[in-house]
Amino acid sequence: MIVQRVGLNALMDAMIARLTSAFRQFEPACYDIPPRSGFTYHNPYLGLLEWMPVMRRGAEVAIKVVGYHPANPGSNGLPTILSTISTYDTHSGHLIGLADATFLTALRTGAASAIASRALMHPDSRVVGLIGAGAQAVAQLHALSRVIEIDQVMVYDSNPAVTRTFSQRADFLGLEVSPVEAHDLPRLVSEADVLCTATSVDIGDGEVFPDRDLKPHLHVNAVGADFPGKFEVPLTLLQRSFVCPDFPEQALKEGECQRLGLDQIGASLVEVIQQPERYAYARQTTSVFDSTGWALEDQIALQMLLDYAGELGLGTPLELESASDDPRNPYHFARNGHSHHNSHS
Amino acid sequence: MIVQRVGLNALMDAMIARLTSAFRQFEPACYDIPPRSGFTYHNPYLGLLEWMPVMRRGAEVAIKVVGYHPANPGSNGLPTILSTISTYDTHSGHLIGLADATFLTALRTGAASAIASRALMHPDSRVVGLIGAGAQAVAQLHALSRVIEIDQVMVYDSNPAVTRTFSQRADFLGLEVSPVEAHDLPRLVSEADVLCTATSVDIGDGEVFPDRDLKPHLHVNAVGADFPGKFEVPLTLLQRSFVCPDFPEQALKEGECQRLGLDQIGASLVEVIQQPERYAYARQTTSVFDSTGWALEDQIALQMLLDYAGELGLGTPLELESASDDPRNPYHFARNGHSHHNSHS
Repeated sequence: MIVQRVGLNALMDAMIARLTSAFRQFEPACYDIPPRSGFTYHNPYLGLLEWMPVMRRGAEVAIKVVGYHPANPGSNGLPTILSTISTYDTHSGHLIGLADATFLTALRTGAASAIASRALMHPDSRVVGLIGAGAQAVAQLHALSRVIEIDQVMVYDSNPAVTRTFSQRADFLGLEVSPVEAHDLPRLVSEADVLCTATSVDIGDGEVFPDRDLKPHLHVNAVGADFPGKFEVPLTLLQRSFVCPDFPEQALKEGECQRLGLDQIGASLVEVIQQPERYAYARQTTSVFDSTGWALEDQIALQMLLDYAGELGLGTPLELESASDDPRNPYHFARNGHSHHNSHS
Repeated sequence: MIVQRVGLNALMDAMIARLTSAFRQFEPACYDIPPRSGFTYHNPYLGLLEWMPVMRRGAEVAIKVVGYHPANPGSNGLPTILSTISTYDTHSGHLIGLADATFLTALRTGAASAIASRALMHPDSRVVGLIGAGAQAVAQLHALSRVIEIDQVMVYDSNPAVTRTFSQRADFLGLEVSPVEAHDLPRLVSEADVLCTATSVDIGDGEVFPDRDLKPHLHVNAVGADFPGKFEVPLTLLQRSFVCPDFPEQALKEGECQRLGLDQIGASLVEVIQQPERYAYARQTTSVFDSTGWALEDQIALQMLLDYAGELGLGTPLELESASDDPRNPYHFARNGHSHHNSHS
């Protein structure tokens, strides 16, 4: 399959390169990207299912459906985040492709943090702290390792068993990873140059680390906030930092930006990438990348996957739509004793 | 496949029975059904791609993605309406099933019209008129033929070639179908007991038939309105008729109800089915079923398909999500040289 053929590092490098280029060239007029919406429930655990549509005008629509079910790893043996993505031709509405997006979501979220870190962290950053050591943390560290020369990694999860297994899940990176217990979280936080928060903290239970003895140039990638009422970063840190949302309209609803006024929010990641000199000063101050997850990133990630599938001759052609020989006869396939498609797969 | 094994008539009967029962038992508190939203564009032809989510609380979410591209049959050899549907477990977000919904959309839209007609038409209705003779018209007539003893069918399409081929597409019904030319449209309209409008009339170009010499008990199934500014039924007829929307909130935005005030709209189809005696008077007056297409219908249709797939042992198990053995390791599959899933299909 694609990941094995291309290799994880090459895939992450390509993802970072494609996203950087998409941000650099981004023109709002070429896209229509409404903030996502979805269903939330307790069933009996907290869950969220949302759809993230994006239209590249004159070309295609991609729709990612993504579930956030923090009880999954403990109760269902499934990832917290499960996702699929589909893309449609805007000339006909035809379904072009369909793919898993559980892996793609981790990949593109990692890549976005790497891009934000490269633009906003202190140039001498060497120490990475991870708060929350689940699936997203693996991809975060992987992505950072492609843009930072990492000397040391410290990792903390509120579940000690998850903290302990992280080194093993990240061993392919060949980095020195120190698991940290709750009482040592203040040390992790004060020694980090770059911090990633990727937790399933409950609504209203954030902040997930203290604003104490932080490096004056600390850069935080806040990945976990994706739900109204859910946040991770101390308010005092947000208030004195350069806060850079991926998608301001959405971050104000469900990101760290929920807690800020419009005047306390800095430039978006697209603006930072398009005008790097203008925002270079943020490397010397504390900065927070408010990563809520942007449908544009999903569209770019899916495009990369489809391009690889084409180049490598991978992927399975799937005729899901019951398009018959006669577009005006919805029953054509049923009456000719043969079928061009799977009506259910 | 399912349609061939079950048979078209049995499938339509089951669809009508399941929808009737779902309407009868419908409790708003058990569902969350936001009005659909989507992208519209000219590319270069008019197109619309929308997503229709529905949550059955405590059970599942279904999301239909549906495209409306009226130039498709003429320009792309594809149906005007192309669609797929997926359903997700709200305990985990796991993708339960995925199916074509092009056929399902025609089936459930036909079934809804049959249910509305059975409740609102004059009991002696025998003559059916069809305006718009594309894919939806085939399913409309099929559904009506399951609940009406039809003596005569008249059909008109603004494209004479489409009018001419209709009898052939509907020949499996064994009904006498008279194609009608433009100059005879007034006769079609005045002789019909039940009329179905299922056209791709352009925004602002409706009404698609004259309000002249109509039977005093005429029942209209207005299927085509599904777009702000698009409508089919003469305003004067709407104003004096019992207008029954499938989903009032949505019909006010994109159905025939767009042209009416709230006080001019009758009971919804669910209300009519739940209190048939109360609305029996509408059988003696003109009535219009404003069918915009309701996500509940899609959820019921998909459930029927999945039930048949289970009973008949049909359908293809598809592991689309990259759920690895370790839910906290997004790369597990890539590092063990094997895969449980298709990352792209």
